[in-house]
Order: sequence, then C-alpha cells, then structure tokens
Amino acid sequence: MKNFIFQNPTKLVFGKGQIARLSELIPDDVNLMITYGGGSVTKNGVHEQVKAALKGRKFIEFWGIEANPQVETLRRAISLGKIENINYLLAVGGGSVLDGTKLIAAGIASDMDAWNIVLKGYSENNIPFGTVLTVPATGSEMNQGSVITRKETQEKYGWMGTYPQFSILDPEVTYTLSEHQIACGLADAYTHVLEQYLTTPGQSRLMDRWAEGVLLSVMEIAPKIKENPRDYNLMADYMLAATLALNDFIRMGVTQDWATHQIGHELTALHGTTHGHSLAIVMPGTLRVLKQQKHDKLLQYGERVFSITEGSEQERVDKAIEMTEEFYRSLGLTTRLSEENIGNETIEIITKRFNERGVAFGENQNVTGNVAREILKSCV
Amino acid sequence: MKNFIFQNPTKLVFGKGQIARLSELIPDDVNLMITYGGGSVTKNGVHEQVKAALKGRKFIEFWGIEANPQVETLRRAISLGKIENINYLLAVGGGSVLDGTKLIAAGIASDMDAWNIVLKGYSENNIPFGTVLTVPATGSEMNQGSVITRKETQEKYGWMGTYPQFSILDPEVTYTLSEHQIACGLADAYTHVLEQYLTTPGQSRLMDRWAEGVLLSVMEIAPKIKENPRDYNLMADYMLAATLALNDFIRMGVTQDWATHQIGHELTALHGTTHGHSLAIVMPGTLRVLKQQKHDKLLQYGERVFSITEGSEQERVDKAIEMTEEFYRSLGLTTRLSEENIGNETIEIITKRFNERGVAFGENQNVTGNVAREILKSCV
Repeated sequence: MKNFIFQNPTKLVFGKGQIARLSELIPDDVNLMITYGGGSVTKNGVHEQVKAALKGRKFIEFWGIEANPQVETLRRAISLGKIENINYLLAVGGGSVLDGTKLIAAGIASDMDAWNIVLKGYSENNIPFGTVLTVPATGSEMNQGSVITRKETQEKYGWMGTYPQFSILDPEVTYTLSEHQIACGLADAYTHVLEQYLTTPGQSRLMDRWAEGVLLSVMEIAPKIKENPRDYNLMADYMLAATLALNDFIRMGVTQDWATHQIGHELTALHGTTHGHSLAIVMPGTLRVLKQQKHDKLLQYGERVFSITEGSEQERVDKAIEMTEEFYRSLGLTTRLSEENIGNETIEIITKRFNERGVAFGENQNVTGNVAREILKSCV
Repeated sequence: MKNFIFQNPTKLVFGKGQIARLSELIPDDVNLMITYGGGSVTKNGVHEQVKAALKGRKFIEFWGIEANPQVETLRRAISLGKIENINYLLAVGGGSVLDGTKLIAAGIASDMDAWNIVLKGYSENNIPFGTVLTVPATGSEMNQGSVITRKETQEKYGWMGTYPQFSILDPEVTYTLSEHQIACGLADAYTHVLEQYLTTPGQSRLMDRWAEGVLLSVMEIAPKIKENPRDYNLMADYMLAATLALNDFIRMGVTQDWATHQIGHELTALHGTTHGHSLAIVMPGTLRVLKQQKHDKLLQYGERVFSITEGSEQERVDKAIEMTEEFYRSLGLTTRLSEENIGNETIEIITKRFNERGVAFGENQNVTGNVAREILKSCV
C-alpha cells in the first residue's frame, strides 16, 4: 500500500425532506449567492423547497450554469459575487452546477482570471459553499474535483477546488430525472470506480473490495431503476453509490488511472457528448488497448464482479471487457463513436491535441496521443 | 435507507515514516500534553520517533493510561492538564490511550467530573487532539467513541467524545505487537463490522457490500499475518481495516446492533477480559440466541462471506454462526466462558446489572438482562 493522506470534511445530509435543513446548515451572517443550472429545479419543486427553507434570509441568485459549465458563464458569476460581496455560495443542481460553483468559489477569493485558475490546476483560496444535489453522477458533492469548459477554444480540463462544507442529498429529487440522465449518472459512477480500481493489483485488499462493492451495487440497481425509477430505496442506493464512487473513500493508498476521463473530456469538448456517455464509449476501448497492462486486475474484476471463472486467462480478460461494454449498453447508452456520428477527424484532432500538449495519461503515464488514437480507433 | 448525517473530519496520515510529520500536524502555538500507556512505546521506538519529530517543541507527558482506561487515572491527567493550561493533546498508543485521551480532552474543557461526562454520554466541549496509533483494533483513531472503566465499581461504559483532528497510522509500528494483541485487534475489527451489518436486511446494498468487504479482507489476512506479522502490506491492510471497520463509513443509513459490545464490556469490567476477546466469546452467542431475528441477514452473510450455499436455510444460518465462532478460534482466541473460568455467578451479575439499570440493547432494543443471560448461557 502506498502512503496516503485522507481527509474529507464534507457533511453529507442524506434523505427525505433534508432540504428543509438549509437554514441550519448555512451560517446566519453570510452574504449568500445561490447558483443554478438552466431551470429544471423550478419544475421539480427543488427551487421552491430551497426558497421555503431559506424564508426570511437574504440571498441573490445566479441562473444559467450550463451542462459542462463554461468559464465564460462562470466569469459573470464571479463578477457578480465580487460586486455583491458574496462570501458563501449554495449550489443547487447537478454535477455541472457544483463544478461551476467550485470555480466561482475560487474566483471570488482570487484576483486571477478564472481560466488561469483552471490551468493552474488548484486553488488555495476559496469562499465556502454548500450544495443541494439534484443529479447523482459526478461525486462533485463530496470531492474537490471540478471540470470546466472553455467554449471559445473547445477545451475542457479538470482542476482541484475545495470540498463543499455540506451537501444535501434527497433521493426524492431524482424522481424527475430522464432515463438518459440516470443512464449517464450510473455510467459515470461505474466508470469512476473503474478508474480507481483497474490498476496495479494487490495494492489494498480493502480498497479492491470496496470498489467491487460499488460496482456490484450499481450493476444490481441499474435494471431495477429502469423498471421503477421512483423506488425510494433504489434511488437512495443510486445516489449514495455515485457519491461513494468518487469521494476519496476507495482510493486510499492505491494508484489511479483516469486516462478514459481525459479522452472522454475531449469528446465532450468537441461534440457535447454527455460526460457519463463519453466514458461509456471510451472505457471499453481503454481496456481493450491496455489489456495486457491491466491483465491481472481484469481477471479479478471479471471473477468478482461478473462471476467469470471459465476459460483461459486471456478469454476471461476479454470476456470482462465485453461485459463492461454490455453493461453500459444495458443502461441504454451507445458505446461506439460511429453510433454518435463521430469519425476519424475527431480522433485525429484528439491525437494532435495530446501530442501538442506533450501529455501522457493513465496509471503508468503511457497514454500518449498515439495511444489515445488507438483507443478511439477501437471504439469506432 | 434511513435518513442520515455523515461527517468525519479526521485527517488520516497513513504509511511508513509518517510519525515524522507530527510537527506540521500539531499547531505551533499550543500547550501540548502527550499521553501514553504503560511504556511499550519506549520499547518499540515510537516514543523516540515522537520525540524526534517534536524536537525543539515544548510539551509535557502523561504516562500510565492502562488497558481499559480508568476514570481514576484520567482524572489525574485532567487535573494536570488544567494546571498546565494544556489546550492540545497527542495520544500515542492503542485504543485505550486514545479512548482515555478523549475523556481528558473533554474533562479539561469542562467543570464536570469526568465520570459524569461518561454517564451523560457525550461532550460538546473538548480541547483538540491528534493521535499516533500503535494497536489497530478499536477504530478510536477515526471516530468519536470512547469506553471508560470505573475501577471502584467495576463499571465500563461507552460515551461519545470528539474526533481526533488527525491520526498517524504507520503499519511498521505493529511489528512488535504480540500474537494475542493482533488476534484481539482482528476480532475487534471483525465484530465492529458485524454489529453494523447483521441487522435488518435490505437497508443499503452499498453498506452491505462494504461491510462484507471488510469482513472478507480481515478473514483473508488473518492466517497470513500469523505466518508473517512483519509483512508491510498485510499489516497495512490490517491497520486500515480496523479503522474502516468503525469510522462511520459502513453505517450510513442503516440500523446498528451493539448488544454484543454491551455484554462484552461487562465481561471486561468484571474479569479484565481483553475487549476484542470478550467480543469473540459473546458474538457467537448473540447470533445463536437472535438467529430468528437475524435470519435473513445471516443467510446473506453466510453466502457472501463464507460461501455457504448448500443446505436448508436453517442449516445455512447455523453454519454461518458456527463459522463465525471458528473464525475467532482460528485467530487463537477462546470463545467459551468456561475456557476463561467464567461461570454462572458472572452471568447472574450481568443479568442483574442489566435488569437493575432497566436497559435493553440491540437493534430492536430487546436484549434485556434476561436475553443477555440466555446469550451468555449459550457461551458456556
């Protein structure tokens, strides 16, 4: 096991009716700005619940953080926040609103341009914020991560902001999500686990078991949610799984990969592919191309998650990869670039971008532009 | 899933050589008291490491917190702390030193007598503290719990203190533990999980999987540790397992039991039985007596942890309980009262104590004095 430091300060406030606790969670004496996406919270009742919980409190609202939040939008929120002396934020929405709010929290506390904060990769100074999560998927409600898009250059990069002080997770708010949103959320959670799990074997028995535990849970609930997306316990498991998939709990003392995410971000930046969907396309390709490197862990994954015990090692590895792709498809997602009308041109742009930046991703930092090309070609 | 609030602020600093980080973890401007047990840290080099890490810093030391820490000892530490204006503690030792230090942290911040704090059950005011853990077992390094003994009345009760600000876990410090200490530590961790897992089924797939993940890991490492107690990765898994077994991570949204602990505490209070060992004796009895109530979960436990898939449901339940007892025995622990020369008199004292206090423990609060008698009689 590698040395590690773990500390996750976020208070998780989970369950029915918990939005009503907002007024006790947000300090009394702050200048509050609430951030939202495009307006779905006005339709599903969440906006009403938030306003009711904060009745009598003063706050301003910032609307319009889009899916794959754009720095151009967030700069406006930062300017507004500075003018209004905002010193506390509440993000109400899905992963994009939360990710965007992390940059607003950093931008208000800084003189740097917001995009430069993203390029720097982290921010020491941030005003505090809490969240009301409406779309289980990214884990942003309980981690430091944030991914921001710059529209004018079609770039999308991850960086590290700060942890929310609290996050309210009421599974009932998921009842109005579309099938596609849920599919992407489940794919996102599942892939987050694979990024932290399909690496060098034997680093930690416990982290392996916990990763497999999230995978098995997501696999078990996915078909049931299709049948009954208003079953409270199912949606609670889904919501908790998405949080636990990416809140540092399953990565103690182990290496991580994230090459699939880096390639997926490019698909989203260039084609607007929903994040979770981009991962469903890329992950099977990553596994096909890196299957020798990931051989032992793929065997373990196949056995423990898919109960694959027959055949030669190579057959079992291939079967595990096939079943991974099948799982994504079972959610209702396509897993091939051609199904999304993404062709060779995009593959070449991504290859060129990686090569020009001189980057190499993955656990062993060997996913260069050329390897990314190979991965994407295997996803055609 | 039940509503829940989760927040665990402890910073876990895990790995080789991490004790050297003490000076960056403890604020510069505090009046520090370091607390220890009986002196094993002077033999295994931990005391030297702590002193080296804090070279140039001023601090006082309090020695002699015993196994099953006694309020009588802790009152002396509290008095000393008050006289010396101590406002930060560092606990260096096993679960007893850490539990005792939680009471010192509360006592220094309070005018109440220390035993009254224990009887009250919690403490709002505590001075901050960090820990250097030397015996993986109780999870005290990352939770609020503390169990204190009052020697004069042979009473032992749990109460809730505060989380350590940080805990340093260096698996190398476990190399000098005795076989019995390791056996008790593994039994303790295993039982902590069972207390949070063998309850009403179907509350959370994820929490079930994570609980099973810790159980499977502990079962897997236990025989290997016997063979090689200086294997770093094994001891790292052991150390992390003990922490994750009782740091709130596997109890989100689920009910808990803890009847076995309540009965075990009595055995320790009356006979000095090591905590983990007392659990190894009582837990199989609890399961035998409550096997109807825990039927469905015992079936799941048997299948997923012991791979029991043959026989009638009743046979599988019985087999799961048998294998639990066998696991404790495989650690090198006895599991019967008669093996420890504990007889009927003790059973009657415990029954009387529970009845006089009017308490009833367990998930369904039905473990009264008379049920405790039944459990203990099944452990003879």
